Amino acid sequence: MELTHLIRTAAKLLETPFLVLDTSCVKENYFRLKNSINNVEIFYAVKANSHSSILETLRDLGSSFDVASKGEIIKLMDIGVSTDKMSFGNTIKKEKDIKFAWENGVEYFAVDSEMEVEKIARNAPGAKVYGRLAMSSNDSEWPLSGKFGTDADHLIDILKYAKRKGLVPYGVSFHVGSQSYNKYKWKEAILTASEVFEKLHKERIDLKMLNLGGGIPVQHTKPVPSVEEIGAIINESVNEYLGWVDGLRVISEPGRSMVGSAGITASRVLLRSRKGTQTWVFLDVGVFHGLMETIENFRYEVVVEGKENSETMTMTLAGPTCDSVDTIYDEIDLPIDIDYSDIVYFINTGAYTNEYATYFNGIEPVKVYTVQELEEMLKGEFLENTERV
Amino acid sequence: MELTHLIRTAAKLLETPFLVLDTSCVKENYFRLKNSINNVEIFYAVKANSHSSILETLRDLGSSFDVASKGEIIKLMDIGVSTDKMSFGNTIKKEKDIKFAWENGVEYFAVDSEMEVEKIARNAPGAKVYGRLAMSSNDSEWPLSGKFGTDADHLIDILKYAKRKGLVPYGVSFHVGSQSYNKYKWKEAILTASEVFEKLHKERIDLKMLNLGGGIPVQHTKPVPSVEEIGAIINESVNEYLGWVDGLRVISEPGRSMVGSAGITASRVLLRSRKGTQTWVFLDVGVFHGLMETIENFRYEVVVEGKENSETMTMTLAGPTCDSVDTIYDEIDLPIDIDYSDIVYFINTGAYTNEYATYFNGIEPVKVYTVQELEEMLKGEFLENTERV
Repeated sequence: MELTHLIRTAAKLLETPFLVLDTSCVKENYFRLKNSINNVEIFYAVKANSHSSILETLRDLGSSFDVASKGEIIKLMDIGVSTDKMSFGNTIKKEKDIKFAWENGVEYFAVDSEMEVEKIARNAPGAKVYGRLAMSSNDSEWPLSGKFGTDADHLIDILKYAKRKGLVPYGVSFHVGSQSYNKYKWKEAILTASEVFEKLHKERIDLKMLNLGGGIPVQHTKPVPSVEEIGAIINESVNEYLGWVDGLRVISEPGRSMVGSAGITASRVLLRSRKGTQTWVFLDVGVFHGLMETIENFRYEVVVEGKENSETMTMTLAGPTCDSVDTIYDEIDLPIDIDYSDIVYFINTGAYTNEYATYFNGIEPVKVYTVQELEEMLKGEFLENTERV
Repeated sequence: MELTHLIRTAAKLLETPFLVLDTSCVKENYFRLKNSINNVEIFYAVKANSHSSILETLRDLGSSFDVASKGEIIKLMDIGVSTDKMSFGNTIKKEKDIKFAWENGVEYFAVDSEMEVEKIARNAPGAKVYGRLAMSSNDSEWPLSGKFGTDADHLIDILKYAKRKGLVPYGVSFHVGSQSYNKYKWKEAILTASEVFEKLHKERIDLKMLNLGGGIPVQHTKPVPSVEEIGAIINESVNEYLGWVDGLRVISEPGRSMVGSAGITASRVLLRSRKGTQTWVFLDVGVFHGLMETIENFRYEVVVEGKENSETMTMTLAGPTCDSVDTIYDEIDLPIDIDYSDIVYFINTGAYTNEYATYFNGIEPVKVYTVQELEEMLKGEFLENTERV
């Protein structure tokens, strides 16, 4: 998403911090992904950003949705999304949420353990389940292994157990890790998934769904493979390893790659100070009000208004709360002349930002505006500017 | 706070997760601190837990309050706390918040930099400022140095600068680090603070306030010094190093030590599963819905209902979201027979829990009940139990 004149004007006039969302980027990301993977069905991972403008945009595009809880199901039902467009992708579900989902028409449920199979069998008899494979995710910025998924042999046992329990073993999912840099990880994962398909086929269990998870990266400060490059590897691997499966459905669950580039956070410098030899810059946004992922050193592109061409110096960048964990980056190169009240933008912060925001220290979570809302709010301003010109 | 029959009954009957708060513990903690430090004035750190039951209890006890933002000031004003009982302790303030505070009667402001002095001088002319010393905090569980405070010489310059800017240099504050294990840290800090008092006295600036910050620990899994032991060291050090200061005010800003022991979190096991050789236990509460401090390996006492005497085994304990950061403890000894739906308590979770909770994954933050609310809700149950007996 471009740092437009509109956003720069808004940052000067409105109270910071705020996050601007541009749903036209979401549309673009949706079509790029659709066009990159053959016959892919997109299940947007609601947890990445559940702002109504994003959910409504994707609903109107005909997207399906990956949900993590009853709360997300209700949010989608409230905007008229049919439950047959939802998949319950969390492998750790409350039993009453499973029941609620099933009774309201959700058909697909993720599993990676025997116990989860039992919970689904009790509450959603006959549901379609897909098993999650664990992947090593050394090449991703936000690894998801360990907590989720299991190995292929265990997964085969789990899906056979699901069948005995009256469920429909339906597919295999994996997740290469959020913000994954190595496109060959998808190839490796599809190969492993195909082994599960094959071994179960020999036991007369025919899986139908390959769920590619998420993990397609968004450009921040490091170069990343494009969705088209990743799509090409996926298409090739699906043909090579799963070409034999009749009526295979290929599902993708993008979160970050759908909305990461659709947001820019605007904040202001509250304080610049010296601590020993280190220069600290404090902003009105921090870890607990929108930038949670920075605690794991997730690196956003940072732009200081009007000082894009200044010489830089290594400083520490922190948020406004009385908590030392609220330090955004211990070391970041910032303009040497960064000063009080300067506007600081975090680019491509549409995913996993406002979703993690708290009211800690009595400070409000980052406000969220759509581009349309900003245009409406700043109408007078633009008129004024035009007249002045 | 004791794991009472009331809480155990509530955990069986109510939806989990929830946090029970017992304001009688807050009262006890207040009086213990009052009685441990000579003439201490208590400014409760609202950020630790801003639940209305806690703020009202402390208001009724005559406590003052350490606030971090305009939001906290308004919350206190709304329950009738006078602004002359508030100190604006955040060293990173929004300028309009300073103005709001000053215009509404807040008199005391923390500083640790020249720029903050300028902001206060512009918006709160004549205000009393206290300078924050940085302390090394190797003996605490949640260190606060680096981000906050500065060295004694710099602080002296800052307080002199404040005077030139028309402010009243009023005192020195420090913070030994949250959950500090070494009682001698307070002695060291008071000695350093006394040097600031002395050097400024020679320049005819007479400070009046010693602000001891917070950091008094709560008992979790390690032995900690008692508030009485810490108080004895503080009294001795104040006499020794600052006995010469006429009309010295001694301030304490307890957060954790006031409310940590006043809360118990109740949750349930959603899933037990095997991942390779490791056993994982997943709860309906996690890092993002109430147990944020565990990401820095903050160790709570964990009790599994009815399995207190079981043999234990090392397992991994995690929360319910689709995020691997939502792992409470990578390694924790849990009952070998812990199972689906078991109730799991986190003891002494009254501080820095609900304050950090989010709606991530569409899951509600931990619910909060007071003991009185639980008693009201479970009245029928108790009656029933009594009749059965």
